[in-house]
Amino acid sequence: MKLIESVPNFSEGRREEVVREIVDEASKYSNIKVLDWSMDYDHNRSVVTLVGEPEPLINALFDMTKKASELIDLRDHNGEHPRMGATDVIPLIPVMNTKMDECVELSKILGKRIAEELKIPVYLYEKSATKPERENLSNIRKGQFEGFFEKIKNPDWVPDFGPAEVHPTAGVTAVGAREYLIAFNVNLGTDRLEVAEKIARAVRHISGGFRYVKALGIELKDKGIVQVTMNLTNYKKSPIFRVFEVIKREAQRYGVPVLNSEIVGMVPLKAIVQTMAWYLQLDDFKEDRVIEKKILDTF
Amino acid sequence: MKLIESVPNFSEGRREEVVREIVDEASKYSNIKVLDWSMDYDHNRSVVTLVGEPEPLINALFDMTKKASELIDLRDHNGEHPRMGATDVIPLIPVMNTKMDECVELSKILGKRIAEELKIPVYLYEKSATKPERENLSNIRKGQFEGFFEKIKNPDWVPDFGPAEVHPTAGVTAVGAREYLIAFNVNLGTDRLEVAEKIARAVRHISGGFRYVKALGIELKDKGIVQVTMNLTNYKKSPIFRVFEVIKREAQRYGVPVLNSEIVGMVPLKAIVQTMAWYLQLDDFKEDRVIEKKILDTF
Repeated sequence: MKLIESVPNFSEGRREEVVREIVDEASKYSNIKVLDWSMDYDHNRSVVTLVGEPEPLINALFDMTKKASELIDLRDHNGEHPRMGATDVIPLIPVMNTKMDECVELSKILGKRIAEELKIPVYLYEKSATKPERENLSNIRKGQFEGFFEKIKNPDWVPDFGPAEVHPTAGVTAVGAREYLIAFNVNLGTDRLEVAEKIARAVRHISGGFRYVKALGIELKDKGIVQVTMNLTNYKKSPIFRVFEVIKREAQRYGVPVLNSEIVGMVPLKAIVQTMAWYLQLDDFKEDRVIEKKILDTF
Repeated sequence: MKLIESVPNFSEGRREEVVREIVDEASKYSNIKVLDWSMDYDHNRSVVTLVGEPEPLINALFDMTKKASELIDLRDHNGEHPRMGATDVIPLIPVMNTKMDECVELSKILGKRIAEELKIPVYLYEKSATKPERENLSNIRKGQFEGFFEKIKNPDWVPDFGPAEVHPTAGVTAVGAREYLIAFNVNLGTDRLEVAEKIARAVRHISGGFRYVKALGIELKDKGIVQVTMNLTNYKKSPIFRVFEVIKREAQRYGVPVLNSEIVGMVPLKAIVQTMAWYLQLDDFKEDRVIEKKILDTF
């Protein structure tokens, strides 16, 4: 069995019935699993997490995008989070027995279909990007829905699929393949925020750390401690265990203990197997040695 | 989805066509997965590893036992490994979403059916044992097939199910629930066997070590190194990471490095999650946070 995850973002975070109708489009597929969905009132945005086999997943995402284009009108939309489409962004993430290349291919199939059938211009981003300046989603989204009516006329911003004309109510949508993102936090036994900040700087890419790590030092006031909060944007290349070991060593430097850590949300099996294999010095251990994986592969 | 593993042992390790016929009894169930099967000529014995949901698994094991009773005649059997039945032993092991108690119940259902329909006396062992002296399989098997015609008349050895009369060709069978067994080896950067032996003594139960660890020090002559080779008979109570950390520390004491380690065969997800959670100091991480497990649970 092949598994791909998607975490589409929709520009509706206040009318629950609308979000439910969109989520229902995925739930009607028996072989798609909706792992989670949540709404944010201030952002006026919702995020759905679904996993499934490639073909039904693409169909479900198309149906959700269609439903969102029917129920959301961006002319009436306001919220704190920048947005450019009723369906703002659709990432495709390889989870099990799939490669990034397959997700790139699928993003193009889905993007083309959204453009042709729904008349919504589509931009390919991240690993699917056709130009370097389209890799970063926030680059594409600059100007937002309102600004896109001008931006789309710029020859540099011709959409990858569909007409060079913004959909009047549903805007434009970004579709792209990317790696699984792991949200990983480490709690430190001190209330000195500067220690967490120094450690965050040591591990994050922007200040010289690991290439696929974003990190911040924050206070957990109710607990009287500080935390290094991170996004690992490619756990295969900047793995959890290596980041964790460096954080432990840096904390030692400041005489501060690591209290515990947490992974937020779901994790792919590969990330767990990789962590065990490193700590136990297993040279030859892959996911297919896990009984549950073997069973999944029979479906 | 609930998953149980079984590793039945059959007293045939030379006639491949016979073993294949027995394995085929499991393969005909679409919802049973045969993970592995192997024959040993000297032991004249074969071992099959299968996983599946409780009900079909019990049915498959019954069919295999029936087939073995038709094809194997213990009066003609000789081999190095002690044995008492055509189907010698059937362990039931909780793997996913099942508890030991359920496996104990299932072992009784299966044992009863084997006794009633096939007229083979059945002894419950390990967690299913009805008396302390029946917990250990080798205690039950003492005397082997040939000795059982007398042993079964002893009031202490009345079978748990079936007539107090050995099946003339298929002998007697042991059925029982037990924990998953992990075969775990650690390689040391030295050719001094005594170091591996000392470390094995430090971690194994019999000489004062962890309760659920069996260990030996052996030489790997082709590699010019030594190994601590282990069976962890309850990874929940004597977990891999703790055993590994003690071995590393003991090796340090002798100025010997740990080169690498290996897990032989398959591992349940729980053991991997447990290992990661310990090393990363995750207080709140269970298997249901693994995407693949979540998907399996939808079946």
